[in-house]
Amino acid sequence: MAVRVGVIGAGIMGADHARILSGSVAGAELVAVSDPDEARRKAVASAFGVERTYSDALDLIGDSGVDAVIIASPDPTHKPYALACLDAGKPVLCEKPLATSPADCLDLVRREVGIGRRLIQVGFMRRFDPGYVAMKTALDSGDLGAALIFHCVHRNKQEIGYTTSEGLIANSAVHEIDIARWLLEDEPSRAIVVAPKSSKLASVRDPQILILEMASGPVVEVEVFINAQYGYDVRGELVCERGTVALEPRSDMIVRREGFEGVRHGTDWRGRFADAYRLELQAWIDALGVGGAAGASAWDGYAATAVATAAVEALTSGAPTDIRMEPKPAFYS
Amino acid sequence: MAVRVGVIGAGIMGADHARILSGSVAGAELVAVSDPDEARRKAVASAFGVERTYSDALDLIGDSGVDAVIIASPDPTHKPYALACLDAGKPVLCEKPLATSPADCLDLVRREVGIGRRLIQVGFMRRFDPGYVAMKTALDSGDLGAALIFHCVHRNKQEIGYTTSEGLIANSAVHEIDIARWLLEDEPSRAIVVAPKSSKLASVRDPQILILEMASGPVVEVEVFINAQYGYDVRGELVCERGTVALEPRSDMIVRREGFEGVRHGTDWRGRFADAYRLELQAWIDALGVGGAAGASAWDGYAATAVATAAVEALTSGAPTDIRMEPKPAFYS
Amino acid sequence: MAVRVGVIGAGIMGADHARILSGSVAGAELVAVSDPDEARRKAVASAFGVERTYSDALDLIGDSGVDAVIIASPDPTHKPYALACLDAGKPVLCEKPLATSPADCLDLVRREVGIGRRLIQVGFMRRFDPGYVAMKTALDSGDLGAALIFHCVHRNKQEIGYTTSEGLIANSAVHEIDIARWLLEDEPSRAIVVAPKSSKLASVRDPQILILEMASGPVVEVEVFINAQYGYDVRGELVCERGTVALEPRSDMIVRREGFEGVRHGTDWRGRFADAYRLELQAWIDALGVGGAAGASAWDGYAATAVATAAVEALTSGAPTDIRMEPKPAFYS
Amino acid sequence: MAVRVGVIGAGIMGADHARILSGSVAGAELVAVSDPDEARRKAVASAFGVERTYSDALDLIGDSGVDAVIIASPDPTHKPYALACLDAGKPVLCEKPLATSPADCLDLVRREVGIGRRLIQVGFMRRFDPGYVAMKTALDSGDLGAALIFHCVHRNKQEIGYTTSEGLIANSAVHEIDIARWLLEDEPSRAIVVAPKSSKLASVRDPQILILEMASGPVVEVEVFINAQYGYDVRGELVCERGTVALEPRSDMIVRREGFEGVRHGTDWRGRFADAYRLELQAWIDALGVGGAAGASAWDGYAATAVATAAVEALTSGAPTDIRMEPKPAFYS
Repeated sequence: MAVRVGVIGAGIMGADHARILSGSVAGAELVAVSDPDEARRKAVASAFGVERTYSDALDLIGDSGVDAVIIASPDPTHKPYALACLDAGKPVLCEKPLATSPADCLDLVRREVGIGRRLIQVGFMRRFDPGYVAMKTALDSGDLGAALIFHCVHRNKQEIGYTTSEGLIANSAVHEIDIARWLLEDEPSRAIVVAPKSSKLASVRDPQILILEMASGPVVEVEVFINAQYGYDVRGELVCERGTVALEPRSDMIVRREGFEGVRHGTDWRGRFADAYRLELQAWIDALGVGGAAGASAWDGYAATAVATAAVEALTSGAPTDIRMEPKPAFYS
Repeated sequence: MAVRVGVIGAGIMGADHARILSGSVAGAELVAVSDPDEARRKAVASAFGVERTYSDALDLIGDSGVDAVIIASPDPTHKPYALACLDAGKPVLCEKPLATSPADCLDLVRREVGIGRRLIQVGFMRRFDPGYVAMKTALDSGDLGAALIFHCVHRNKQEIGYTTSEGLIANSAVHEIDIARWLLEDEPSRAIVVAPKSSKLASVRDPQILILEMASGPVVEVEVFINAQYGYDVRGELVCERGTVALEPRSDMIVRREGFEGVRHGTDWRGRFADAYRLELQAWIDALGVGGAAGASAWDGYAATAVATAAVEALTSGAPTDIRMEPKPAFYS
Repeated sequence: MAVRVGVIGAGIMGADHARILSGSVAGAELVAVSDPDEARRKAVASAFGVERTYSDALDLIGDSGVDAVIIASPDPTHKPYALACLDAGKPVLCEKPLATSPADCLDLVRREVGIGRRLIQVGFMRRFDPGYVAMKTALDSGDLGAALIFHCVHRNKQEIGYTTSEGLIANSAVHEIDIARWLLEDEPSRAIVVAPKSSKLASVRDPQILILEMASGPVVEVEVFINAQYGYDVRGELVCERGTVALEPRSDMIVRREGFEGVRHGTDWRGRFADAYRLELQAWIDALGVGGAAGASAWDGYAATAVATAAVEALTSGAPTDIRMEPKPAFYS
Repeated sequence: MAVRVGVIGAGIMGADHARILSGSVAGAELVAVSDPDEARRKAVASAFGVERTYSDALDLIGDSGVDAVIIASPDPTHKPYALACLDAGKPVLCEKPLATSPADCLDLVRREVGIGRRLIQVGFMRRFDPGYVAMKTALDSGDLGAALIFHCVHRNKQEIGYTTSEGLIANSAVHEIDIARWLLEDEPSRAIVVAPKSSKLASVRDPQILILEMASGPVVEVEVFINAQYGYDVRGELVCERGTVALEPRSDMIVRREGFEGVRHGTDWRGRFADAYRLELQAWIDALGVGGAAGASAWDGYAATAVATAAVEALTSGAPTDIRMEPKPAFYS
């Protein structure tokens, strides 16, 4: 009765999804994995007891023993694989971004609307992070009054090889863009980017401050800093009319050692969002079981990419940039 | 291929295990539930889609479609049901206590040793709490030097109906007894109980301070306070030669509201140890899959009860009490 | 040998300065107080054993038994009283603002330059707050690398009667303007103000976000929110190339009560900055003793007002505003 | 009009008192210093502009230009110098201990009672620490209900040359003995000491746990650990019927650096209790001005020594030890 899942991509993210799905999610069975790289493919298959492996993702999608698909392959492949899943009528959890341009995202949105059934979930896992969920619960309770400002900090230990100045927004801050839309249930209407002088340890414009004015009035302020050196650190504080709520560091332990008392930060996002990834996969499987959908939709995938694209323009031009989005299909309401 | 699990007891703990097992654990299937109370039994069965229900736990244990059993029925039933599981050769996760006296625990230990295979896991879930696990990892790394003192705080919001003064040790502090044995890999040799004047809001001797001298030298100090009023709060600090490590409150959110900035405490242990219960069940299922065993053994169940019994004697007599335990069978090493 | 001090203004701030100076500062003696309001004047005189009282501040300044003067009267009086102190050759600690317009501040700057001796200290007390001092010490040590972003939060419990939208910058954020100039040893070159929708509990545009681009590259981001409801809360985090340093809440106590664990915020700035006020006065007295000067100069008073004026323009126009300041006289270097 | 103070002892504590008194206390003037060591005496005199210096403390006490005396010389000299102050009718702030045995303390108590005027203040500075004061204010408000347990941690970075196992109680935990008596307004009736195995980095029995049963019922539990390595750390949590209050680390800054987020601990008590020392001296001077007395009395000095002596006996014997004290003279009520 378990949902039989195939994972496309056996890199870091794909292997992680395979591990979590097979070891920590109820109601699912990992049955197939694909990757053009044989060694990676076999490593994941052997680690998690997967029998069917494919070099071509389209073969995995076409496998009649696969009920649902996770796409964790390189960004440019997301669109064609997601389309193939739609064509096959199979539910798909697609790692962000849904596609690399707003137009490509819209193609997927339109195809899904045409099918008339939600098959796509975009992997914005933070929506399942207990911290953000607690924040949203607090806001939705009404106890805090209206949301006014959402301060965010998104810091990575250090940049990786192929980073660009635009990538700070398109790859990193895009998480805050999605979580702000979800939390505030509102769309950004204008983006401002202020870039301080860059760290001497960065090869790109780093850090940056992104400001989003939401249509109904609140303002989102995001610091992105990918060479923060001290560790991976994501914070958020939602300032409301009658109080504020903020994320905790989510450490397991307080250490007193060598003059210090405090918590330790990890070096990447997988530790910080381990719960979020697990709960995202569980929610996806649970929703499949009842023919429903969970998490970020194809529309959310489009919106995040559209906002990020406008914000990159604001970075490049140095001027406040209006954000234009297509009208939202009634299908997603 | 999933392990087919039956749950004995459809009260608070049994229902919780049923919920977690069916909704958050990989590789398991909840197939049966038993409870003499028809309403509770049916409620759990319907909530989690369980088809087979029994009024008599022995029928559930005897069901050939049940591979493994969780005992979450009242304390005095633990021993007979665990014995029945041993007789049936079925792995069993037994909520603490394993049995209500050291002698009864020993009966189970001897039976298991006779069988020659570890079938019993005792439900000391804290061994799977990420905080305690991080603490043990830190200690085992050697970086902190030897453990010297383990300070513990165990507070409940308020007492429940059938509480006794002895129960503060036998039911509450027994968790610290187990976690200290596990963390320090050592046995307590002497117990001292100091009881301050009791809270006017308590009907029993509350709070109490339990001190355990471990055989190899460290000292464990436990405050148990079951009428703490402000919420459920479990803390621990392990003091070592070169630093200390302590549990975090494990809150999801910092709240600033009405003059306050801080975290909120829940009202009982289920929120605080939600991760621990889930990871305990996952580890149990995972161990069954490979024919192994995880968590606290029947021997640990005996030891916890033996230490608690001596500590209750120390409370009653007001004098330091030596702790005597049977020699540990090689089987458990 | 003690410095004989006269305090102009017996309102909240004047009474507070009188109390601190007479009760907690070494080397000073409070000898005179002036206020047109007889009741307030007498209350302060009697509370702190002051014999000489004046209704007219100019008489206090002219009193030959007064060595140095504190101005804590209403803002528009600061300039004429400070001028009178300069004419009398008496050191003066003038509460902020130095004067209510950049031009008026400049008049005082020029007069002081003409005298050729630093007589004016402006009451930006945060420069003496142990938190900011620790932050500056950390930055100046070089250990953190260059400063990139300075995040600030400035929240009041609730607005007072005569608040204006411009006042959030001119009266509140002006503290962050001064502390950022001092901390970063740099001048702001451009101001951006983003105003979210206002709290329904506010009668003015509240909250606001002020962004200052500093001439050498760092960016200062300030949230001002004067109807935060939960209490008075000032925070700051300095983000540098190799780490960050942030202010602590400076609470004396952690409270666990009614489901909560955390610290309490006061209702106004006097508790939060009690140490800063005391240390400011002590540094002023100490500097007088050696013929020197401490804290913010008349030039700093001018700069803060000039920057605040440009920022108010940015709020009003909704556009980024360049900040123009007069060249700094060599006298202040 | 300022109180003219002489300081006996120009070592670490004496120099610190001289610095604080001359630089941060209102209404006092440092006029004399004595120390048999000429170099130290001259160093303090020159640093703080003191003209009169003595090699013999009795000459300082006899100086008619000295109104009040601070004793900060080695412990065995406290009694004779305090007696000389009493004989001279001069108020004296005597560093703890008042004298090195209960009997010697009693001699001073009796002499002071005979004089009929409180002249002695014992230097238990923690009574002026804002953290403990906030704790006492909270308790005295009645809001928390009765006090039940007072947990204390007293850690030093590392032992100094002349440390003994008894010294952990007599020199370190004596601070907790005093603060517990003051906070709870009660006397200890029984002492238990549990000593875990000692740290390999210690030359004495370190750490130790001291338990004091107070006459009216609350229990005080103190961990003393003088080789804690990570820094100087003093903590306290007062557990009451309706909540708890605890000391904060009192750091000025949160640091995020090299994987860590937290606060820094100093290496000795002077930073941690800087405010306490300043406020202690100010309260002493203020009380002299009105002919009154502040802080710990000679009787408190006796009580602390008597309790510490009993606790040392408990350490040595390994058995709970009843604490016997002389009846308290009405003079001290």
